[in-house]
Amino acid sequence: MLLFFLFSSWNPFSGGGGESAGRRSQFPPKSLTSKKFSHSAQTSATPRHPIDPLTVGEIHRVRSILSSYEPFLGQFPAIQSMTIDEPDKSRVLGWQSGDPLPPRKAFVIGLLDNQSHLVTIDLESGRVETHEISSGSGYPMLTMEDVAAAVDAAVSYPGLEVSAAARGLSVANLSCISPSPGWFGPEEEGKRLLKVLCYSKQGTPNFYMRPLEGLVMTVDVDRREVIKFSDTGRGIPIPGGANTDYRFHPGNDPPEMNPINPISMEQPQGPSFTVTDGHLVEWANWEFHLKADQRAGFIVSRVVVRDSETGDRRSVMYKGFPSELFVPYMDVDEAWYFKSYMDAGEFGMGATAMPLVPLNDCPRNAHYMDGVFVSADGRPFIQPNMICLFERYAGDSAWRHTELTVSAGELREARAKVTLVARMASSVGNYDYTIDWEFQTDGLIKITVALSGMLMVKATVHDNMNQIENQEETGPMVSENVIGVVHDHFITFHLDMDVDGPNNTFVKVNLVKEENLEGKTPRKSYLKPVRHVAKTEEDARVKLSLYNPSEFHVVNPSRRSRLGNPSGYKVVPEANAASLLDHSDPPQLRSAFTNNQIWVTPYNRSEQWAGGLLTYQSHGDDTLDVWSHRYVTWLY
Amino acid sequence: MLLFFLFSSWNPFSGGGGESAGRRSQFPPKSLTSKKFSHSAQTSATPRHPIDPLTVGEIHRVRSILSSYEPFLGQFPAIQSMTIDEPDKSRVLGWQSGDPLPPRKAFVIGLLDNQSHLVTIDLESGRVETHEISSGSGYPMLTMEDVAAAVDAAVSYPGLEVSAAARGLSVANLSCISPSPGWFGPEEEGKRLLKVLCYSKQGTPNFYMRPLEGLVMTVDVDRREVIKFSDTGRGIPIPGGANTDYRFHPGNDPPEMNPINPISMEQPQGPSFTVTDGHLVEWANWEFHLKADQRAGFIVSRVVVRDSETGDRRSVMYKGFPSELFVPYMDVDEAWYFKSYMDAGEFGMGATAMPLVPLNDCPRNAHYMDGVFVSADGRPFIQPNMICLFERYAGDSAWRHTELTVSAGELREARAKVTLVARMASSVGNYDYTIDWEFQTDGLIKITVALSGMLMVKATVHDNMNQIENQEETGPMVSENVIGVVHDHFITFHLDMDVDGPNNTFVKVNLVKEENLEGKTPRKSYLKPVRHVAKTEEDARVKLSLYNPSEFHVVNPSRRSRLGNPSGYKVVPEANAASLLDHSDPPQLRSAFTNNQIWVTPYNRSEQWAGGLLTYQSHGDDTLDVWSHRYVTWLY
Repeated sequence: MLLFFLFSSWNPFSGGGGESAGRRSQFPPKSLTSKKFSHSAQTSATPRHPIDPLTVGEIHRVRSILSSYEPFLGQFPAIQSMTIDEPDKSRVLGWQSGDPLPPRKAFVIGLLDNQSHLVTIDLESGRVETHEISSGSGYPMLTMEDVAAAVDAAVSYPGLEVSAAARGLSVANLSCISPSPGWFGPEEEGKRLLKVLCYSKQGTPNFYMRPLEGLVMTVDVDRREVIKFSDTGRGIPIPGGANTDYRFHPGNDPPEMNPINPISMEQPQGPSFTVTDGHLVEWANWEFHLKADQRAGFIVSRVVVRDSETGDRRSVMYKGFPSELFVPYMDVDEAWYFKSYMDAGEFGMGATAMPLVPLNDCPRNAHYMDGVFVSADGRPFIQPNMICLFERYAGDSAWRHTELTVSAGELREARAKVTLVARMASSVGNYDYTIDWEFQTDGLIKITVALSGMLMVKATVHDNMNQIENQEETGPMVSENVIGVVHDHFITFHLDMDVDGPNNTFVKVNLVKEENLEGKTPRKSYLKPVRHVAKTEEDARVKLSLYNPSEFHVVNPSRRSRLGNPSGYKVVPEANAASLLDHSDPPQLRSAFTNNQIWVTPYNRSEQWAGGLLTYQSHGDDTLDVWSHRYVTWLY
Repeated sequence: MLLFFLFSSWNPFSGGGGESAGRRSQFPPKSLTSKKFSHSAQTSATPRHPIDPLTVGEIHRVRSILSSYEPFLGQFPAIQSMTIDEPDKSRVLGWQSGDPLPPRKAFVIGLLDNQSHLVTIDLESGRVETHEISSGSGYPMLTMEDVAAAVDAAVSYPGLEVSAAARGLSVANLSCISPSPGWFGPEEEGKRLLKVLCYSKQGTPNFYMRPLEGLVMTVDVDRREVIKFSDTGRGIPIPGGANTDYRFHPGNDPPEMNPINPISMEQPQGPSFTVTDGHLVEWANWEFHLKADQRAGFIVSRVVVRDSETGDRRSVMYKGFPSELFVPYMDVDEAWYFKSYMDAGEFGMGATAMPLVPLNDCPRNAHYMDGVFVSADGRPFIQPNMICLFERYAGDSAWRHTELTVSAGELREARAKVTLVARMASSVGNYDYTIDWEFQTDGLIKITVALSGMLMVKATVHDNMNQIENQEETGPMVSENVIGVVHDHFITFHLDMDVDGPNNTFVKVNLVKEENLEGKTPRKSYLKPVRHVAKTEEDARVKLSLYNPSEFHVVNPSRRSRLGNPSGYKVVPEANAASLLDHSDPPQLRSAFTNNQIWVTPYNRSEQWAGGLLTYQSHGDDTLDVWSHRYVTWLY
């Protein structure tokens, strides 16, 4: 059973502290080249598990096979994606440590002459097994090389020099970023586009705060040329960017606060978890497979918990990962309307995950894992230290009870809470998403998404609120000439739940008010739980409502406790948000997975990405919403 | 400005892990006596701040004044509450360290001849300043002595021996608890009642799991007699209680999991906070007054943050505390319908807070504070180690950003997150509430309520789910013959916000969909923030809605930033729940503060307790809902 589970937050106004708004895009990482081909003992190892990611050696092998593949002779495609083609679930579930690995296969998405080639390759035989050219809308995830090429094209465009000069700058003073264009109808079809926006980098590394407002260049990525140049903001000053350098310097003026003494999480005997063969994590009563992924960031697979009574290994989840993000901005100006990002499918949560900073991103004793990824030429590169794994003790109790009773005397029982956290952080342009999977010994798995980084801001002629009292602005003024534009962040997780096996059922337990109790009780009402077993996908599309609440259970009716209860997991949505955009609005069409907070679909190996496999400039014809509405699908 | 802010959760089904349901009541703490009069250096000190709680010496003084007060000569009232009568806010705000203290006064609630006497006393002059006899409904918070007396009366009731014998037990085998009766109309008025329920304590300290189902004794607390005895459950077996001993023994069989190595939070130079004069906490850029309270548990006052630019001390909140809890169970049987607890006003969150367990409830380097409370005879007693204060480092980053840019090279910036936590844990019978106030250096204050402890369960004749398929049960079967009855926990916080001073305004920023954009933009919709300044209390009654979302700002229009924005705080409700009971249902009437998730009322010194000052058996005539609907009150 697949469960798509939406997390979200909206950040219209950054009140008096805490999180604030903003985001977007990626500058060519020139230093990337030096990292290619770097091998580490950890990442160059032989694969040991059927779902282990492709190794450095395997990536070279795939490239070599593709190079001699007849259709690509003389015109090697740009490799937009190359991953392990995981064996069928039944095969993986049947495999045990020590068994020979199932055949290793790669799934490649290559781009050639504006066409997306979907190719599967058997590594042993060296044969291309399937080769399909996509006929639907959308392009594959961009490569870093695409981004670099588009920015290069934009910065050499003569109009940019003029626009920069009109603001007293030269192109050398600019940092340019390349957000995706979304999709807004026929005139943008048939070519891969990027929008390029520029900022003054003078005086601050936080160039995001210094936009050349109204300047937007539409670049044809493959032709490497600017096809549309628009500059409507020459009258808008570039915000000053004072005090926006975020880099830590020991010599910085101390902030107006008392110093905080050193504090750390210490484990004199070291951590209690082990990582075997690079990917298999074991801790307390948990076991799972953890790997980096260029698109999803990281993937947690084969999650197993040990039964506290029998010691049996019991399956919880086959696979879980961030499936897609949606970040629509609420400003319809020419330089803003298109900002409706789908970070996983457009840029990749792994591709944008820089190395974690020891002691600041993750505590002492953290174990780090690299990502082994693929660049556009089909060669491997290492994303070092992109995942960390650590035990957390936050000073909390896992369970407690105190009691004064005559019989038992004073009872004071408390257990300190220690958990295991797997973490990564993607910097998709200005915004940083930190994603945690946290495992508790009581069986709970908690997913947390934290936002950090910088705002994506809009410049304005105004530098004080009293000038804009009756004017329309699309967000609050956060500094002189700077508007923090209202936007949302939605992230949906793909959770392939296999609680005690694959045949799980989704149950909504609705709380219903019972009334008309006269004569039976002094109460006038109470709430009764009413179970609804979802029979079709439609039954399992959930819009959360505070005043019509339900619990959500994923149960296995074929595995009963001694009481006859099915085994199961409860899905608990915490703080959440809904997308209020028109369902026919192009950004909402493409990210229609945000139409509900929970969706349940029958297992389908091909339905991994809630925004579609080929997301870039897609028309919304391959989303979770489309799959779910295609026909009435019975969940059991 | 007062802001009442609701937290809640509902626990109908305990799914596959995590939190589960249950709760209630307090057995006479016989060991209490030994703690009376115990003095500690910390708690016997002279008061140093106008709002410091009464000291041991002051409590003795108040008792002595009351003993010679003419109306109480010869008939000393039972002291249900005795606290510092805080000076007027303006007086407290005007006071500075070193100034002489304003006159110390005590507010006493005494019970005499079934009447609640509200008395204020000036400690210096020794005079009773005001003396009022309550004419409204409701009684004061119970004392431990009330609870003990009621249970004593019940266990000596002859019918109990018969009921016990019918189940093969004697009274000596029982543990009895005394939940509050709620209020359900005229026949329960005019006398203070407790319901007494009994459990078999054989074989487990967790007697809550072994109810004598259907047995309920209604006790007149003041006459100390059982006035109603009901036993409808003799045919229902007492659940076995196997494996319910929750006490930790080093010799316990190890659970089926790998051991977890020691882990702790270490501060080689010690903690960075200071506590001056017993109550004044200073840490990083924060300063606040913290004290224990017999009813609220603890109170955070005079919260001040230092301005990061100027170093000025800026007011954030005058006073914050848990104002009331509401825990309605969803079962209308004779032995269950009344379970609709109001823990703060009925039993007291401080009165039920046992000492915290070092290293398991709070980490190493925590600082502990005692509560100085008052027993029914007016004498002081110490609740030792009932609050802890510690710095938390959970392995997270406070802020991070990484970036690859040509101009700046690779930037990897992250700051470890360290916060300050003030914690207490109340064990209101079976259920434990841990309440945290967490302060972040970026200005955020986060309140967290965690639930732990044991379920409040109902016995049933059934021991397997297959027997109850078509039968009505009011919750899931959690063990043989044990039903975990559906219930809610609502907790509302009283937040007297004084952001940069007292004249704050409440602003709802509603997100509204804008459509009909044809010709202006390729987008079909966007969301526009629309500000609604609350003019009356009615404007500020908030029912949260995912599909009609707002942000909630408390701003000070008279204090503007250099940009002209008012200073302010954002109130962020996280996961929440609504009460779905009939508004005319007696439990809902009494806890009508759960009719909305947020209420804002103008400052009124007497409106502290959202369920009313005299909550016990109240009729709902003195709740936040009543105050707010009394007349149209302008907020500014």
